[in-house]
Amino acid sequence: MTRTIDLNCDMGESFGAFTVGDDAAMLDLVTTANIACGFHAGDPVVMRRTIRMARDRGVSVGAHPSFADLYGFGRRRISGERPEDLETQLVFQILAMQGMAALEGHPMTHVKTHGALGNMAAVDPDLAALCVRAVKAVDPGLVYVSLPYSETYAAAERAGLRVACEIYADRTYTDAGELTPRALPGAVIHDPRQSLDQVLEMVVNRHIPTTGGKRLPVDPATLCVHGDTPGAVDMARTLRTALTENGIAIAPFA
Amino acid sequence: MTRTIDLNCDMGESFGAFTVGDDAAMLDLVTTANIACGFHAGDPVVMRRTIRMARDRGVSVGAHPSFADLYGFGRRRISGERPEDLETQLVFQILAMQGMAALEGHPMTHVKTHGALGNMAAVDPDLAALCVRAVKAVDPGLVYVSLPYSETYAAAERAGLRVACEIYADRTYTDAGELTPRALPGAVIHDPRQSLDQVLEMVVNRHIPTTGGKRLPVDPATLCVHGDTPGAVDMARTLRTALTENGIAIAPFA
Amino acid sequence: MTRTIDLNCDMGESFGAFTVGDDAAMLDLVTTANIACGFHAGDPVVMRRTIRMARDRGVSVGAHPSFADLYGFGRRRISGERPEDLETQLVFQILAMQGMAALEGHPMTHVKTHGALGNMAAVDPDLAALCVRAVKAVDPGLVYVSLPYSETYAAAERAGLRVACEIYADRTYTDAGELTPRALPGAVIHDPRQSLDQVLEMVVNRHIPTTGGKRLPVDPATLCVHGDTPGAVDMARTLRTALTENGIAIAPFA
Amino acid sequence: MTRTIDLNCDMGESFGAFTVGDDAAMLDLVTTANIACGFHAGDPVVMRRTIRMARDRGVSVGAHPSFADLYGFGRRRISGERPEDLETQLVFQILAMQGMAALEGHPMTHVKTHGALGNMAAVDPDLAALCVRAVKAVDPGLVYVSLPYSETYAAAERAGLRVACEIYADRTYTDAGELTPRALPGAVIHDPRQSLDQVLEMVVNRHIPTTGGKRLPVDPATLCVHGDTPGAVDMARTLRTALTENGIAIAPFA
Repeated sequence: MTRTIDLNCDMGESFGAFTVGDDAAMLDLVTTANIACGFHAGDPVVMRRTIRMARDRGVSVGAHPSFADLYGFGRRRISGERPEDLETQLVFQILAMQGMAALEGHPMTHVKTHGALGNMAAVDPDLAALCVRAVKAVDPGLVYVSLPYSETYAAAERAGLRVACEIYADRTYTDAGELTPRALPGAVIHDPRQSLDQVLEMVVNRHIPTTGGKRLPVDPATLCVHGDTPGAVDMARTLRTALTENGIAIAPFA
Repeated sequence: MTRTIDLNCDMGESFGAFTVGDDAAMLDLVTTANIACGFHAGDPVVMRRTIRMARDRGVSVGAHPSFADLYGFGRRRISGERPEDLETQLVFQILAMQGMAALEGHPMTHVKTHGALGNMAAVDPDLAALCVRAVKAVDPGLVYVSLPYSETYAAAERAGLRVACEIYADRTYTDAGELTPRALPGAVIHDPRQSLDQVLEMVVNRHIPTTGGKRLPVDPATLCVHGDTPGAVDMARTLRTALTENGIAIAPFA
Repeated sequence: MTRTIDLNCDMGESFGAFTVGDDAAMLDLVTTANIACGFHAGDPVVMRRTIRMARDRGVSVGAHPSFADLYGFGRRRISGERPEDLETQLVFQILAMQGMAALEGHPMTHVKTHGALGNMAAVDPDLAALCVRAVKAVDPGLVYVSLPYSETYAAAERAGLRVACEIYADRTYTDAGELTPRALPGAVIHDPRQSLDQVLEMVVNRHIPTTGGKRLPVDPATLCVHGDTPGAVDMARTLRTALTENGIAIAPFA
Repeated sequence: MTRTIDLNCDMGESFGAFTVGDDAAMLDLVTTANIACGFHAGDPVVMRRTIRMARDRGVSVGAHPSFADLYGFGRRRISGERPEDLETQLVFQILAMQGMAALEGHPMTHVKTHGALGNMAAVDPDLAALCVRAVKAVDPGLVYVSLPYSETYAAAERAGLRVACEIYADRTYTDAGELTPRALPGAVIHDPRQSLDQVLEMVVNRHIPTTGGKRLPVDPATLCVHGDTPGAVDMARTLRTALTENGIAIAPFA
């Protein structure tokens, strides 16, 4: 039986004259693009250009909303905002991206939360529910991309949204199924072989290997590929080739 | 024969904790709201709240796009941008506002350009055409609100858009039908009676009285009411009452 | 024996065309101004104008630095930034304000942290130490304005800075000497008479009355007067008059 | 007789997580750094880091102020601002950079205006005078870096500022001594040999060769080296080596 996985990458993270990553090259390698909506990065010109490049290559596009934090690139943890205000900020980002994608004839398929917002929502039920409400308010047909074993995953399922389970090649998992925090030793996998093995284990055998030696069931839909690190394009190409050589088909989840 | 005029006001110009004008009070007096889209003022929370308040009072809503210039409130004249980039910025603002209005069950009716962009486009055929293209690209059913005797008016008509002719109560007009520049003496009418007379002349007799003594034909659809000056609400109330007493019906153009 | 208190007010919180408060009127009533440095509010033009108005009235000026958060007006709680980066942001704000004040011939006297940063630093020893380091790095002769019974007060004293103890007229205090959190009942004193009594108790009798009935020793240097609430100017005038009538002299702490 | 030239480069143009250029590498090649002040690029953390790197290499630092235009990277032409407000914005940028450099024990030497502001001031006497006033207001000992045959050069000299004459290796000059506008053919010199020859002609023979065949007298102090183009570091290294091999000493003008 053929196994299939989607490759997703965060992109459209340039802003005005500030250029981030090589989106054109990454779009030749991935099948799904999560595009910044102007709150942590991105601007209308970047959004439109990225959507067009994705459309021309048959790559699915989604919104990648964030806290309102251009200076911090959405990586600063922000609290103390009125929940309904934060929800409206997310609604805005999602519907603006959806509108731009529709205008370019390439309907948007999904939403994935960015940075600190994503990390905080993964472990905070209230924030997870807020994110899910924002997506559903714009369009209940949108897919919610989320880590498994997270509050966002649970909230999205509870709300009746279709969820795409996202996995990482270069991050280890705790026994609770969460990503090992970057501050801890062993959080990041640097060996490409070990990284590939983890992906195959997850995609083929449907288990997450944990740092405590457990094997947690998983049904992965999409693998996150980094786009803004040095050598990102080469690493993505190598990974894609290795997956294909191991009998994994690469195709959009949406 | 009953004459009818719409009263439009620029609003939704608060930003975060920075509050501008008394939108709730103005919305009780006008029939059309031009709402800032976050580029010179406004943010998603302000946009949504303003749309809801307008909807609940039956006031029409439109996008009020601007140059990307929060610091300058869209009043700084900006050039040197690639035309296609500026066009995309306008497209973004219009479709984001349209999306938010649709979400709130109060479909957006029109677009009016803000500040320096509006002033520059009124006399620059290329910029006027650019603005019109942006509106049409989002939705050819949107009404373009424009001063008469302007490049924007001509461009919008040429493009087949419905145009709503906008007039001013407190500004004089040159023989060319343009607003007398604010820097010149006599540009602003300070006498309420003279102001009312000018409006009646335009609405009832369908002529613009000019500073050179001419009478230019006009077919006014909407009268601009200022919302951010001291005493704005009282002035709007007085004007509305005077118009009604003079047999003018107040109703949305859209 | 005559008792003296300084009245301080946060100001210079306008930004571009966005106007906050009536600084000119407040500057006629207070003796110390904490001026926004462009990170949560304020801009160079506002900073310079506010410094000049303060100078012309003999009002002391200080920097009121914040998290980098214009949208949230510095009220959002932000974490996850590298401590040395946050420290540099504070250093920048303090030295920029000091430079502008020096240019206007009105040397800056003090620093008071704004909003969420101030609230977080008051209870976080590391963040308090960071704020104190930033002030001291720019000029060890600057006064640190701080609530008593706080981490910032302790850190500033430990670092050898002169500290000006700040009290509130309209906020109650816990038995630990901290402000009762706004979310709790009884946090804000709405009765002007009760508010005045609390100030007199603190200024004359040198005790903080707490919600648990304790009396904590205090040596107040400055009383915080709000500038951005409705009726702020009238309230400040009333309070100033009442203090004077009760034998309290109003004078700058610096 | 030995000829000497300074090599200057615009840098510190990163912002938060948005990285521009390779400042560390360029600082090993140039003798003067013009550092962005947060208005078109740069932030306090970037400013401080860039100053420190320059200090450690003995590279002179100066302020590189701009219009307030992060989105447009200071390349959009902006007008309609009150002149005194623009002047205050420049004053702020210059004194903030000067304060930060002083704090790091590496006193700032000069000012060079950025992008559209620089281009506009070069041909507008009022804007040139405004820029010069801002520099002089902060510190009349600062050197003004300017193109020759420009309004800024004339204004700075008239004001009694020391001026450092800046030349370009890769741009041709009109008979009026101005840079050929980029929109015109032949504006940019792509041949490294021709580029070097032009520099040698200017540095050794003290003449600007013009597109009309004239030779205009010039007394060059500093040569602008680009830092944000692809291959910028290699080009700077090549140019530096060629200059040295042709007997030109490389040393700071300040």
